[in-house]
Amino acid sequence: MMKNKQAGDLENYLLKAIPISSAMGVRVEVASTKEVILSAPFAPNINHKKTVFGGSLHAVATLASWGLLHVNLAGDYQIVIASSEIKYLAPVTSDFKAVCHMPEALDWDRFIKILKKKGKARIKLNAKIFEGDKLSVDYSGVFVAIKTDYF
Amino acid sequence: MMKNKQAGDLENYLLKAIPISSAMGVRVEVASTKEVILSAPFAPNINHKKTVFGGSLHAVATLASWGLLHVNLAGDYQIVIASSEIKYLAPVTSDFKAVCHMPEALDWDRFIKILKKKGKARIKLNAKIFEGDKLSVDYSGVFVAIKTDYF
Repeated sequence: MMKNKQAGDLENYLLKAIPISSAMGVRVEVASTKEVILSAPFAPNINHKKTVFGGSLHAVATLASWGLLHVNLAGDYQIVIASSEIKYLAPVTSDFKAVCHMPEALDWDRFIKILKKKGKARIKLNAKIFEGDKLSVDYSGVFVAIKTDYF
Repeated sequence: MMKNKQAGDLENYLLKAIPISSAMGVRVEVASTKEVILSAPFAPNINHKKTVFGGSLHAVATLASWGLLHVNLAGDYQIVIASSEIKYLAPVTSDFKAVCHMPEALDWDRFIKILKKKGKARIKLNAKIFEGDKLSVDYSGVFVAIKTDYF
């Protein structure tokens, strides 16, 4: 599948601005206002047990979530991560993908409404890691968006 | 300060077995059964805002916690991470350290007792990230230790 422009732009930005994403071999498979899907190869992300290091799984899930906000907010806002939770459901033993979809429309609309009114708002995003079809990781992160001229 | 043998051994093991720890520039400053302190440099861990990427902070906190268990359990157990939570309290704008101390003695004793009896037990460890003296990240991870011949 050919990458769309948003995916190519996001990948270039990520790899250039966040060197550790390059060390992890992150690729942007899909990027739209609806979803972001990242992939990462097994080899650079292994741990001592020859499964994927939990830190890499968390990092790629974080990048997928951040990417979805980045695509939707289009440079007018700073995006800061406030907190996250991650559940490691199954070890990952090969290449993997991180998928972040838009949250419920009601939550998103409320987030955008507060953001426009106050210049600052927070939203929880969920990302999942899959190895093939197998759900391996469940992640959620709370992100704060802040209008660039807020300060 | 000269590194003690445990710190040198843990560093060699980490950097060899988990390549992403090498990409992050992780060093083991202190390793004992009481505490593990890791350090990491700013440059390889930056994000697009020129602060430390949240994924790197989480990864180094995970490694400090895992390291403390590794030093205490001395190879007789597999250590698997089940879940974690992280709060990003302040942006990190230079080199940083991750500190993991032993949990409360009561919790540790209960963990070891169950581990000896059942061959498998879980424990929550807390790690903190400091930039100089400033607390920047509060992390907790739930780890499961499993006796090597449990399976």
